[in-house]
Amino acid sequence: MNFDTIQALTFDVFGTVVDWRSSLIREGETLGRARGLRVDWPRFADAWRGLYQPQLERVRSGQAPWTPLDDLHRQALDRLLVEFGITGLAEAEIEHLNRVWHRLDPWPDTVAGLQRLRPRFILATLSNGNVALIVNMARRAGLPWDAVLGAEVARHYKPQPEAYLTTVAMLGLRPEQCMMVAAHNGDLAAASALGLRTAFVARPTEHGPGQTTDLKPARDWDVVADSFVDLAARLGC
Amino acid sequence: MNFDTIQALTFDVFGTVVDWRSSLIREGETLGRARGLRVDWPRFADAWRGLYQPQLERVRSGQAPWTPLDDLHRQALDRLLVEFGITGLAEAEIEHLNRVWHRLDPWPDTVAGLQRLRPRFILATLSNGNVALIVNMARRAGLPWDAVLGAEVARHYKPQPEAYLTTVAMLGLRPEQCMMVAAHNGDLAAASALGLRTAFVARPTEHGPGQTTDLKPARDWDVVADSFVDLAARLGC
Repeated sequence: MNFDTIQALTFDVFGTVVDWRSSLIREGETLGRARGLRVDWPRFADAWRGLYQPQLERVRSGQAPWTPLDDLHRQALDRLLVEFGITGLAEAEIEHLNRVWHRLDPWPDTVAGLQRLRPRFILATLSNGNVALIVNMARRAGLPWDAVLGAEVARHYKPQPEAYLTTVAMLGLRPEQCMMVAAHNGDLAAASALGLRTAFVARPTEHGPGQTTDLKPARDWDVVADSFVDLAARLGC
Repeated sequence: MNFDTIQALTFDVFGTVVDWRSSLIREGETLGRARGLRVDWPRFADAWRGLYQPQLERVRSGQAPWTPLDDLHRQALDRLLVEFGITGLAEAEIEHLNRVWHRLDPWPDTVAGLQRLRPRFILATLSNGNVALIVNMARRAGLPWDAVLGAEVARHYKPQPEAYLTTVAMLGLRPEQCMMVAAHNGDLAAASALGLRTAFVARPTEHGPGQTTDLKPARDWDVVADSFVDLAARLGC
């Protein structure tokens, strides 16, 4: 396809831009050593992320009021501390652990790819992460976003249409002038249905070595890349 | 005062960060030469900006629905083209002229000051400009914002409290962790009433050589500076 009309790239973040699982395991293991905890941190990381979609679904369905992701993460964490038998942490330690999501590491190709893309395209986040989380992550990791948008400014979690359409509108663009970049076929399907262009970037170890989902593009997306550097090259940057 | 608790600086943009008047005059004169228009561009610029507060007031009061600033600028422009007898412009030329607000030049000290401040503070816009306007301005002028917030994400125009409080909340901070930076005493008064810290940066030629307003701080703001570089120095950066 011709990419001349694309003005902005809108990015999924968790899994696409950053490697949440390795980052959670790393910080968990550091905490565990410091506090003498015996915890299976890979299982803990998967359990924490596993509560994410059920929590979002309660908000999307209206069962729960609008709640920023930081607060959903904390609700899940409080539950998991009990389930994993983690005791003796001070409130400040628990809150620091909850903010591990603000300290996720990018994939090795992320920063170099974004730097190549930025002169040509507006780079905006279209994440379910709240603004503070994405801003703090960006400052730590050096992610050069032009705008931090997505769920919180729309007060709707992806894949609800409002999350995509509010972001596009705030960029002053039409859907076809935006390209959604994600490692998740479901995210791209929702964006595509609203008229956005689509780029699939494979992240085959997002869920660890045994990952079975999103290993391949499920449809003929506008771009398929295996890294952000590859994405930049395919978009002519 | 002690600035250790300040986490973020929130910036007014028009007049504080960028010199809207000189930029409008410059682009108007360029257009005038190209299209053979005889227009008093300083008067045109002042008239355009002069319609701003009355327009915002109609939205703030509920007389008009929420309307992004780009659209308010266009409504005002359409009226001024008639009043100034400017005819013969194509729709694309009018729309390009309307987007002059996306192409405003920073004051000479702006970029250097922001670069010094950024390692220490989160830098966010808290402007009545819509997100697209502020993003496009930032990309052109090299303004290193961490987040573009303010009126549009709050759907309330300053000085309504929601504009400030939504921005603070989206940064994940309390009001006293944020410092409002503005060249306008009224903006700082509104922010201060909500608990934000305040920095006045004098811009004595924002309204041209005969400016009579906001030449001096009206109160004992937390910081008073005469440029963004001076602001950085006073904040220990």
